[in-house]
Amino acid sequence: MKAYTIKALHENMDALEQQEVTVEGWIRNSRAQKAFGFIDLNDGSKLSGVQIVYEKDTVDNFDAIAKVHIGAALRVNGTLIKTPSMKQPFEIKASTVEIVGPSRADYPIQPKRHSREFLRENAHLRARTNLFTAVFRVRSILTHAIHRFFQERDFMHVASPIITASDAEGAGELFKVTTLDLTEVPKDKDKTVDFRKDFFGKKANLTVSGQLQAEIFAQAFKNVYTFGPTFRAEKSHTATHASEFWMIEPEIAFADLNTDMDLAESMVKYLIDTVLKEASEEIQFFDRFVSKGLVKKLKNVVEKPFVRITHKKAVDILKAAKQDFENTPDYQDDFAKEHEKYLVSHFDAPVFVTDWPKDIKAFYMRLNDDGQTVAAMDLLVPGAGEMIGGSQREERLDVLKQRMEAMGIPEEELWWYLDLRMYGSTPHAGFGLGFDRMLMYVTGVENIRDVIPFPRTPKQCEF
Amino acid sequence: MKAYTIKALHENMDALEQQEVTVEGWIRNSRAQKAFGFIDLNDGSKLSGVQIVYEKDTVDNFDAIAKVHIGAALRVNGTLIKTPSMKQPFEIKASTVEIVGPSRADYPIQPKRHSREFLRENAHLRARTNLFTAVFRVRSILTHAIHRFFQERDFMHVASPIITASDAEGAGELFKVTTLDLTEVPKDKDKTVDFRKDFFGKKANLTVSGQLQAEIFAQAFKNVYTFGPTFRAEKSHTATHASEFWMIEPEIAFADLNTDMDLAESMVKYLIDTVLKEASEEIQFFDRFVSKGLVKKLKNVVEKPFVRITHKKAVDILKAAKQDFENTPDYQDDFAKEHEKYLVSHFDAPVFVTDWPKDIKAFYMRLNDDGQTVAAMDLLVPGAGEMIGGSQREERLDVLKQRMEAMGIPEEELWWYLDLRMYGSTPHAGFGLGFDRMLMYVTGVENIRDVIPFPRTPKQCEF
Repeated sequence: MKAYTIKALHENMDALEQQEVTVEGWIRNSRAQKAFGFIDLNDGSKLSGVQIVYEKDTVDNFDAIAKVHIGAALRVNGTLIKTPSMKQPFEIKASTVEIVGPSRADYPIQPKRHSREFLRENAHLRARTNLFTAVFRVRSILTHAIHRFFQERDFMHVASPIITASDAEGAGELFKVTTLDLTEVPKDKDKTVDFRKDFFGKKANLTVSGQLQAEIFAQAFKNVYTFGPTFRAEKSHTATHASEFWMIEPEIAFADLNTDMDLAESMVKYLIDTVLKEASEEIQFFDRFVSKGLVKKLKNVVEKPFVRITHKKAVDILKAAKQDFENTPDYQDDFAKEHEKYLVSHFDAPVFVTDWPKDIKAFYMRLNDDGQTVAAMDLLVPGAGEMIGGSQREERLDVLKQRMEAMGIPEEELWWYLDLRMYGSTPHAGFGLGFDRMLMYVTGVENIRDVIPFPRTPKQCEF
Repeated sequence: MKAYTIKALHENMDALEQQEVTVEGWIRNSRAQKAFGFIDLNDGSKLSGVQIVYEKDTVDNFDAIAKVHIGAALRVNGTLIKTPSMKQPFEIKASTVEIVGPSRADYPIQPKRHSREFLRENAHLRARTNLFTAVFRVRSILTHAIHRFFQERDFMHVASPIITASDAEGAGELFKVTTLDLTEVPKDKDKTVDFRKDFFGKKANLTVSGQLQAEIFAQAFKNVYTFGPTFRAEKSHTATHASEFWMIEPEIAFADLNTDMDLAESMVKYLIDTVLKEASEEIQFFDRFVSKGLVKKLKNVVEKPFVRITHKKAVDILKAAKQDFENTPDYQDDFAKEHEKYLVSHFDAPVFVTDWPKDIKAFYMRLNDDGQTVAAMDLLVPGAGEMIGGSQREERLDVLKQRMEAMGIPEEELWWYLDLRMYGSTPHAGFGLGFDRMLMYVTGVENIRDVIPFPRTPKQCEF
């Protein structure tokens, strides 16, 4: 008989009542009495799993089942019986229990509280705990929701390249990609590395952003998005930094900063609303065990219109605040965490801060008419600070060239980027959303290492 | 007025007839007479674009429009008028034409035939040609279809890591990932590289496959899939090899090779069927201009049940063939292209070849009871040869260890992979589909460089 997933059993509980069903999964917990026993079985399709009841008089391998270790894989045939419990609306009364793959007494994941650090060291088994079943289920649901959001709105997905020879964006430290023999790196006469002998015939590295390539495609398909891995080689050991993470970068042509913010706001609301609906069991679990008040926080984001204020206005608000900041708010500076926190609590809503001083922002952001600020936006959200960074891009060839020169970016490296401004240039805009940080936000999980299946951080590259 | 995409105009043609609409896009072609002119405008949302008609008496900048260069960006207001033409069911009679971004006489993409090589060198502009509009539209549709196929069947998406420290799979040449200073690589006393000083504290490289990590997740979530970039540093200059390409790797627990083939068959049929339906205009275009007979080839795959034969049986067929092969078919060997071609034409259908000699297959494939073959499968398809490679995985700890020892793979590198066989091991299986090759198959485009937005190959890493 073909096995049902536990999710399918839940969805078809009424039709399957009193029916014989097959279910497969791994033992999360087990309690045996003399004449009967209970097993919590989980196959990852449903956070709460299913309870198996087996009796000495019914199954012919009672003693073997009673002794089986946590973690073992089972195939169970039995009858679906509804129960009066809310938490567990049905159970399976087993007729046969096959031990497909036994486990051992030293199985690391026991039904008790393990430290997050211990679970990271056992990342090959941690997905079999409630916390990580929930986290990675939400990760998958959110992944699909992102594609759905953009595709339903006729955005084209662009696979931006992972290996690039351009380091023009300067968004962070780069990982080098090479096939040179590191024991004997070929050198030029001046002792510099001879990259002509390398795989690509030049210096190559892992991308820090797909934006510039997304801009290329936006100038042909109007509305596009990337969704793929990006990299930073910063030796940062904080809870919010990983060396490898996924980014979503939409780019829209014939559009200004307001249209960009409209898109960001509707995307954030759609993603959170989808998770609240499609992962309600998981979100309830996080609210209860990981981050009290999570549901309220998320619903607030879905329901409240996002505030839009300029950086100048935001600094005015901070300066007028009846609060002593460690860092003095400044019209020329980026915000500190405490400032972001104050602003979102001041408005009790997500806040777009726009029109930033040009000197602290990237070369490609569109210069405003004041000559001092650029058409950039950061989205600050309650409980996390910056979630999204975006901008209208400089579409005027002469202004872009001036900005590149001022910031020391050689034109020949970005000849194709300049070409886009020569042939059918359009006002266009885009933003970047860090997928893993979004996942931290919707789950309440506080360490990025715990939302990535196999995280990469300085000195950590296991599995 | 908010602009419609050209796709939306087509979809709402009846409701919008005789209505005033706004449309934005880039000029693909332009012909001006004395008193009126025609412009082919395209915004990437629809392969065929839309025709703009403008008249001297109606628009106030007739001369400027008549002189505007190919590639310029326009915003057009006008009335949607139905035409008797099948090819072009409506046109826009312009009331205003705004030149948003001009172009120049030296715009590289002129309305004539350009060589593929020339277009690759101008990959930042080639998406504005019919061929590449079609290719990248299909790429995006296929991307979404892959997620939909798996998510609708309750498969969990797993983001397998891109940077890995394991090179155990041995699937190909590796790109090294490092932050070491290449002008002065730190060395140990024995002159080998001191990777303890590197970013991850050990040797790291770009992944060749997410399979082993997908297996981890399949042992918790039962049905999972990866869809992400993978890498090979082979100095291969063929039309089917790229250094960076995307792979789809499903992995299913409590499953054998037959279930694996069922999944592969239904996935391939679903993907091709989706493209035939959702990209019918593009596929007709490819059939006409790129690969005659494409639609027939694709429909054949959707409609025919896939054949399943063992490798031994396949060699029997080859040996009995009334055809002289350059390479003699052998029971111990892989197939040559000519063998694959013969087999699919012999059956006039896609063919799964199963149960391969163990010595030419990977260590993780499940050993059959004969001790000589493994439970592997290759899917051969008419017009392309191998499309998918998969296998049941060795779930028995002792057999796996013997195979690893025989193939010189150190156990300590894959301790976590062995753990999976110690704690709740299950029969499980999976396969890999190269996304870009699938895209070549459904478009008929013969060079992998022409289905990847910005391809990476030896000595090529532009944009």
